[in-house]
Amino acid sequence: MRIEYGLALAENLADGKVNTKALKGLVPELEEAQNWLEALGKNGTVGFMDLPFQEITPLLDMGNHIRSQFRHFLLIGIGGSALGAETLAHTLWHIRPCDMPAFHVLDNVDPVKTREVLGRLDPRETCFCVVSKSGSTAESMANFLVILEWLKDAVGEDGARERVIFITDPYKGGLRDLAKEEGYCALAIPPNVGGRFSVLSAVGLLPAVVLGLNVEGLLRGASLALRVCRTRGLDSNPAWIIAGLHYLHCTLGKKGISVMMAYHERLTTFVDWYRQLWAESLGKGGKGQTPVKAVGAVDQHSQIQLYNEGPKDKIITFLRVESFSSDIEIPSLYPDKPALAYLGGHSLGELMNKELVGTASALAKRGVPSVTISMPQVDELNLGALFMVYEMATALTGHLYGINPFDQPGVEEGKRLTYGLMGRPGFEDKGKEAREIWEKNEKAVFALSLEE
Amino acid sequence: MRIEYGLALAENLADGKVNTKALKGLVPELEEAQNWLEALGKNGTVGFMDLPFQEITPLLDMGNHIRSQFRHFLLIGIGGSALGAETLAHTLWHIRPCDMPAFHVLDNVDPVKTREVLGRLDPRETCFCVVSKSGSTAESMANFLVILEWLKDAVGEDGARERVIFITDPYKGGLRDLAKEEGYCALAIPPNVGGRFSVLSAVGLLPAVVLGLNVEGLLRGASLALRVCRTRGLDSNPAWIIAGLHYLHCTLGKKGISVMMAYHERLTTFVDWYRQLWAESLGKGGKGQTPVKAVGAVDQHSQIQLYNEGPKDKIITFLRVESFSSDIEIPSLYPDKPALAYLGGHSLGELMNKELVGTASALAKRGVPSVTISMPQVDELNLGALFMVYEMATALTGHLYGINPFDQPGVEEGKRLTYGLMGRPGFEDKGKEAREIWEKNEKAVFALSLEE
Repeated sequence: MRIEYGLALAENLADGKVNTKALKGLVPELEEAQNWLEALGKNGTVGFMDLPFQEITPLLDMGNHIRSQFRHFLLIGIGGSALGAETLAHTLWHIRPCDMPAFHVLDNVDPVKTREVLGRLDPRETCFCVVSKSGSTAESMANFLVILEWLKDAVGEDGARERVIFITDPYKGGLRDLAKEEGYCALAIPPNVGGRFSVLSAVGLLPAVVLGLNVEGLLRGASLALRVCRTRGLDSNPAWIIAGLHYLHCTLGKKGISVMMAYHERLTTFVDWYRQLWAESLGKGGKGQTPVKAVGAVDQHSQIQLYNEGPKDKIITFLRVESFSSDIEIPSLYPDKPALAYLGGHSLGELMNKELVGTASALAKRGVPSVTISMPQVDELNLGALFMVYEMATALTGHLYGINPFDQPGVEEGKRLTYGLMGRPGFEDKGKEAREIWEKNEKAVFALSLEE
Repeated sequence: MRIEYGLALAENLADGKVNTKALKGLVPELEEAQNWLEALGKNGTVGFMDLPFQEITPLLDMGNHIRSQFRHFLLIGIGGSALGAETLAHTLWHIRPCDMPAFHVLDNVDPVKTREVLGRLDPRETCFCVVSKSGSTAESMANFLVILEWLKDAVGEDGARERVIFITDPYKGGLRDLAKEEGYCALAIPPNVGGRFSVLSAVGLLPAVVLGLNVEGLLRGASLALRVCRTRGLDSNPAWIIAGLHYLHCTLGKKGISVMMAYHERLTTFVDWYRQLWAESLGKGGKGQTPVKAVGAVDQHSQIQLYNEGPKDKIITFLRVESFSSDIEIPSLYPDKPALAYLGGHSLGELMNKELVGTASALAKRGVPSVTISMPQVDELNLGALFMVYEMATALTGHLYGINPFDQPGVEEGKRLTYGLMGRPGFEDKGKEAREIWEKNEKAVFALSLEE
């Protein structure tokens, strides 16, 4: 894996404030952030750095059992309970053998989607995996209740128990209680690992085993990345580079937006994972940077006009893969037509990667900074390393901002207002408050009738 | 269709600068923008306002023919040549009958994706539709060359000609020339309709007919919306409301980000369409607002922490559907468990819409402005209206910013640099320039070896 970041430094750009000197000047703060993070790891407050070294035999046993028994695997989860597994499945499915269970996700309460997903499943041949650390996430609980009734109707109480697995807190919460009382199988998320840092716990690894992915490779990649992310120095620690550049571009350079643009379709879901990690960890106390997902080369025809000529409020991270698992040569069918001739003899993968260079170069000419992360190929080893580098970089960036990257206080009020609207006992005042606010929204209304 | 925007006005928010007075103060500028736009329409410079009234018999004939002859329909296009059709297909597929051709899109040059898509198709039973207004878009031409060779190998020259359709400029460009010389069937994109405003031309309508959608309904919705979007006044013209609020929040309120968050899975692709329209039309001359796609309720567990407690740089547009085409009741399985009991007896669709209200209310308490667009249901009439309202609003916003919303000069340099890297004759200097810039990127590199 390589991180190329010359074009994120002012000395190589048409304009910009963040230069090598500024980055080097941040070393004492990075060192302090590293000390703080290591201390949180050592005293057990923060657990994601322990995950590469966990005992995975129970996970392998359970996953292999599921793989041998079921034709479908449905994950019911939302946010950090779904994005890690979705990234693993979407990014790596093309290297897994074909005889694995089909992977499905229910990460929303849109009834049209829930009906559509259940319509694809035979309840007898499906394993249902409900993931919620708190054991009380409204969306996942609602889907769980719908599915449990449907499943019991099809296979009975005992049949349902054989097909449902929880992944939740080891000691407390609604799902843990239910597991104890009704005998459901339940795996644990370590209490010191938050949802968005949980991809290398059972939350991501159980689905990975079910899908036949190389879990040891994932953890080995993460462990090798962690080793360098524990060193001190911009020359040796990739998390320092990512944290330092983004912090400086955001604060000194007023880049409030961090675009991640993947020039490889299989990595686009990794950007969704990054989007949660970056937004939810850092967006607090008025600080933070808005992560934006983009897809190369597609978004050259949608967003690049804005990135080039709009406000100078972005730093771009390009994701690139050096070799595609299977490339396709473009035939020379029209050697006399200028719009077609130059393409012949090149490959699609080559065009993709040259478009990245062309795009990054045009942005640099306008003073838009970019970082390019290259992987030799997409596999477990590289993806495991990428997860860990970004988790470390995010944690360090939080400390640079002076905020706590491991909490999410700003999501609670919306939940309370929704509980009130849904009539949950104890939240009556919140329901009243939400209705009062919503009445203000309805004070200014335009209505368009589409009746003729 | 309703637009509720009380919570985008400062008098109803915890803080903010954009109030009713400021919005009303913008009326003269909106009036001037409206005059400018109407004049461009009348003198034929801008054509999207004519599309609701076009003659569609040839499109219907061609689309019905394709539908009766083929089992698969592959669209090869990128940006505005793909997003409109993708929105139509994704948003409305669930109301179309099942005996329509399967719809596929190739909108990128990732060879893994191209191989995967072609692997799903039988060349004998597939119609290949290549969309490019210029007739020279590199990505679409590269895929076209790959497919043409594959197709000719399978069904011969004549067989290929029967299966390929172009949608391109009526008079000029690479595809138009090829159509004339080799006898390919080719539909026209009006020269005065740009890619991102082309969904209601053949670009979107031919795929819509093939998929069995109600094209008359789409155009009727657009025509009814256009009628109100030609009136003068904040009480009658929804495009004035959207343009005015976004312009003021961007300039007065420093909201550089426009989030569109759809609380309906079927509308999420509309957000991709909006994202191009807003970014590419308005992002120039240092002006513009970065559009961000979000999905409710999913992103409550990913982005809402940032929206609530991060920088105050966003205005949110919520998309809501009043009635889901099929709702699902949540059963009361655990009346004694607080985390589950309150959900029982409600429906998933009700939970979805109450989450929107809870989220918007929590944001309002923090001073984050939002607009909510509600549709009675997702169908052709409503979607056609929504397209037109946003096209009108975008054009007006461009005039408010003082930029031309119909060009995209900022995408050219990246194309030229890529041509140079691909060895296209005439672009040798650009290739050299791109390589020189890229060398600067490689001046600062971190390399992580994952060998042990």
